[in-house]
Amino acid sequence: MIVAFSITPLGVGEGVAEPVARAVKVVRDSGLPNQTDAMFTTIEGEWDEVMDVIKRAVEAVAEVAPRVGLVLKADLREGVTDGMTSKVESLEHHLS
Amino acid sequence: MIVAFSITPLGVGEGVAEPVARAVKVVRDSGLPNQTDAMFTTIEGEWDEVMDVIKRAVEAVAEVAPRVGLVLKADLREGVTDGMTSKVESLEHHLS
Amino acid sequence: MIVAFSITPLGVGEGVAEPVARAVKVVRDSGLPNQTDAMFTTIEGEWDEVMDVIKRAVEAVAEVAPRVGLVLKADLREGVTDGMTSKVESLEHHLS
Amino acid sequence: MIVAFSITPLGVGEGVAEPVARAVKVVRDSGLPNQTDAMFTTIEGEWDEVMDVIKRAVEAVAEVAPRVGLVLKADLREGVTDGMTSKVESLEHHLS
Repeated sequence: MIVAFSITPLGVGEGVAEPVARAVKVVRDSGLPNQTDAMFTTIEGEWDEVMDVIKRAVEAVAEVAPRVGLVLKADLREGVTDGMTSKVESLEHHLS
Repeated sequence: MIVAFSITPLGVGEGVAEPVARAVKVVRDSGLPNQTDAMFTTIEGEWDEVMDVIKRAVEAVAEVAPRVGLVLKADLREGVTDGMTSKVESLEHHLS
Repeated sequence: MIVAFSITPLGVGEGVAEPVARAVKVVRDSGLPNQTDAMFTTIEGEWDEVMDVIKRAVEAVAEVAPRVGLVLKADLREGVTDGMTSKVESLEHHLS
Repeated sequence: MIVAFSITPLGVGEGVAEPVARAVKVVRDSGLPNQTDAMFTTIEGEWDEVMDVIKRAVEAVAEVAPRVGLVLKADLREGVTDGMTSKVESLEHHLS
């Protein structure tokens, strides 16, 4: 499955890049395909491995923030691999 | 933590109440505090127990739909219990 | 359409009930069907009226917070009225 | 503000690249800074211009689907411009 998620630390001020970087580091160290933009980090894998990474990313932020918000959107489709690339390619094909 | 989530089955037509009911049944059978409205089901518990329920809810829908979307919003705050009730009470206190 | 949304003030500490209450007040004053639980406020109406309410709710929070997060999930279906009630009834019908 | 959004057409089968491409076309034609990956399209601008683009993107999908889901996450911060780039740069700075 493909999952885009965003972690918001509360109670640490309005600038949150440092605590959020802790979460992104967990994702990059995970070995799963991943990509981070201004709003979400997207990763791809099986449910258990993806959710384990997100749990540890949330924990890494919770170490430095008293309250943590998590928003997640997942796309689960049997038999799809490399969906992070193929979905965008399919979309661009329809746009060209 | 408190988690609100919504499961969307794709490839089964525009009416999705029947597959979505499979997910809500998993949640109600879980024993965790839960509530379902028109847009989200909200449950409260520890990460592992909540995510286990959501995983099984997704699987119950995936049994009858070729593709499943999941949207989830979580609020994690150390030391808060019965947050589903206390958050609304705190809010109403500020509104009265 | 039915819209569930949640506003998160950043830079005001971890307790956010007071700024969030400002948003809920805007919604309740709007006259649109609405409901607030621990995670989301749900409202129903046409796009322009719903989005106008959400814009004013966000502005009410932005008056007291330097940064504001908004999460929104909408369900748009032509010809559906009173969806906040009918969706839950349809779901309960499948569960009974 | 920066907004990441995702439109899901229901009732058109499990493959949704074609209707979704209609939404992305509206965004690209808007002239606002934008970026599309496997899960979300991100755009940046003022509330009214961003919401107008999203409304027209939703309408473009609704022309070919009987039911449309919208998920949106926004980050509103006074005085921030070019946030799509600067947020990622700030994050990478903390990761290096």
